[in-house]
Amino acid sequence: MATAIPPQQPTPERFMNAISAYQQTEAMKAAIELEIFTAIAEGNTTVATIAKRCKASERGVRTLCDFLTIHGFLTKDGVEYGLAADAAVFLNKTSPAYIGGAIEFLLTPRVREAHARMVDAVRKGGSALGEGNMLADNPDWVKFAEAMMPLMVMPAQIMAGELRKGGEAYKVLDIAAGHGVYGIFVAKQNPTAQIHACDWKNVLAVAERNAQTMGVGDRHHLIPGSAFDVEFGSGYDLALVANFLHHFNPAVCTAFLKKVHASLAPGGRAAIVEFVPNPDRVSPPMPAAFSMMMLTTTPEGDAYTFREIKKMAKDAGFSRVEMAEALLGLDRMMVAYR
Amino acid sequence: MATAIPPQQPTPERFMNAISAYQQTEAMKAAIELEIFTAIAEGNTTVATIAKRCKASERGVRTLCDFLTIHGFLTKDGVEYGLAADAAVFLNKTSPAYIGGAIEFLLTPRVREAHARMVDAVRKGGSALGEGNMLADNPDWVKFAEAMMPLMVMPAQIMAGELRKGGEAYKVLDIAAGHGVYGIFVAKQNPTAQIHACDWKNVLAVAERNAQTMGVGDRHHLIPGSAFDVEFGSGYDLALVANFLHHFNPAVCTAFLKKVHASLAPGGRAAIVEFVPNPDRVSPPMPAAFSMMMLTTTPEGDAYTFREIKKMAKDAGFSRVEMAEALLGLDRMMVAYR
Repeated sequence: MATAIPPQQPTPERFMNAISAYQQTEAMKAAIELEIFTAIAEGNTTVATIAKRCKASERGVRTLCDFLTIHGFLTKDGVEYGLAADAAVFLNKTSPAYIGGAIEFLLTPRVREAHARMVDAVRKGGSALGEGNMLADNPDWVKFAEAMMPLMVMPAQIMAGELRKGGEAYKVLDIAAGHGVYGIFVAKQNPTAQIHACDWKNVLAVAERNAQTMGVGDRHHLIPGSAFDVEFGSGYDLALVANFLHHFNPAVCTAFLKKVHASLAPGGRAAIVEFVPNPDRVSPPMPAAFSMMMLTTTPEGDAYTFREIKKMAKDAGFSRVEMAEALLGLDRMMVAYR
Repeated sequence: MATAIPPQQPTPERFMNAISAYQQTEAMKAAIELEIFTAIAEGNTTVATIAKRCKASERGVRTLCDFLTIHGFLTKDGVEYGLAADAAVFLNKTSPAYIGGAIEFLLTPRVREAHARMVDAVRKGGSALGEGNMLADNPDWVKFAEAMMPLMVMPAQIMAGELRKGGEAYKVLDIAAGHGVYGIFVAKQNPTAQIHACDWKNVLAVAERNAQTMGVGDRHHLIPGSAFDVEFGSGYDLALVANFLHHFNPAVCTAFLKKVHASLAPGGRAAIVEFVPNPDRVSPPMPAAFSMMMLTTTPEGDAYTFREIKKMAKDAGFSRVEMAEALLGLDRMMVAYR
């Protein structure tokens, strides 16, 4: 970046970039809503043709496409725009790996407001919005289940394959199932597995639909209600606890894992999937930064280190906890043995 | 970043980073408001001592400081946080180069709302908020004048020095003076220069105060009102048109430069300061990205290329326009000769 100050001197540039970073969020959201990436994938590569396809002004399209080029999501060659490799795979609505719908969950007004009130959250040590995202039957979790599903397919496949290395599971409890794909891929990989999926009723409807679409509907059973309150039943070989613990404080997590432990058959396992920061809590960047999302949107949640999760599981009665080698996208999987 | 997908395959990571980028903005804003950087500069380096100094919870401070460390504004060594070099210079409130106050202008609710409505702006080809930031006597320009001044001191010094190479200026018109520092530094470098600063009355009060504080108050004269409507007078050696043209369309800019041209003495010059993207409009990144700020916050403004500005000035009657070598931070200076 051009600057009048010699490079060895500090400049305000990184500060300005941080202050302006929200523009990237708004531009990505606008581009998805206007279907800019899809328009380009369809062969509309100039300002005029994109504007026509997206029902927008040429001036607006030129500015947005230039902005997306500056941030690497488009290419620009003379007057023609093209898609960067990741934009082509993930942001073109007709691509099977399209994940643009994730903005519906990741950028709800409630999540944005929770972050806008970060000063209050830091002062208080928890979401400025009280229960934050944790209210029962919060419709945002339906958005989550619908919007995040495409992002979870590959991690869920890896997870199911990884778990089979420890033996087949026949009776599986899928806690806070959401989109349901973690349990669904266990069922797909083992045609004799029965999945019992627990979540709020409105969210379970999404998991049920996905199970049917993906051909395992007859082995996908529903336990509607709060995972803290419902009766799980017993005799499970495997309990999936994916992206759940981070919403709660360690004492609540430990008590909850006791309930999970009690539902397992002898020799049963719990698969705990989480963003796991290193002990320094500042690496790797994305799992570590997830702690901020939990501060702003939950009363007492956090991104937990492996040591913290191991302690919760041990305190809940599990005999040992192992970190799986495989990476599930940005998530890690830990297996706790009854 | 750890990922299960081989690096040659596209991953959703950059999409997720863009969608989450607003968190950087909120965290920087929160850290400035809570005086985290100042607290650390004062020697409070642990979560407990920072929390006490900033009247915040330990959990919140830990999460915010870790987030700022992930993004490079703090360092973390065991349990002790430190300031990155730029944070120490620019974000510690007791530093003479403190610029944290810039958030008061850069992140006004109106600017944020204008970006939140980016889809409307792209459809329409201009700010979704009508006149955007361009309303007369908009108090946000007082915030601009107050908040942005520390960022402008060094560029203004460089600019004044650069302009002296072309000869001393004795009667100087400072258009849309804002904080007034461009004119003020011309006056400071030439003790015989008289500065006539034009801006809305509420904003001019800031320039006047700065001129007095910086010892040139007796040579700093005020022309209150809209630069389009007021009478500038005539016989100026130098007119400063700094960060003004980008708010308007080329026809308005050209008409305005005619008015500036008419105010100059024979041999007079206009110094036009702007963010100037290259002809490709996608580099350098920050000046090019400024086009988005103009789309969202003005009816018809833009970041103009050198060729576009040269055309406006020529059409307004200037005989030649030259780009100065010196960089004024992210701005460039062009000199238009009567």
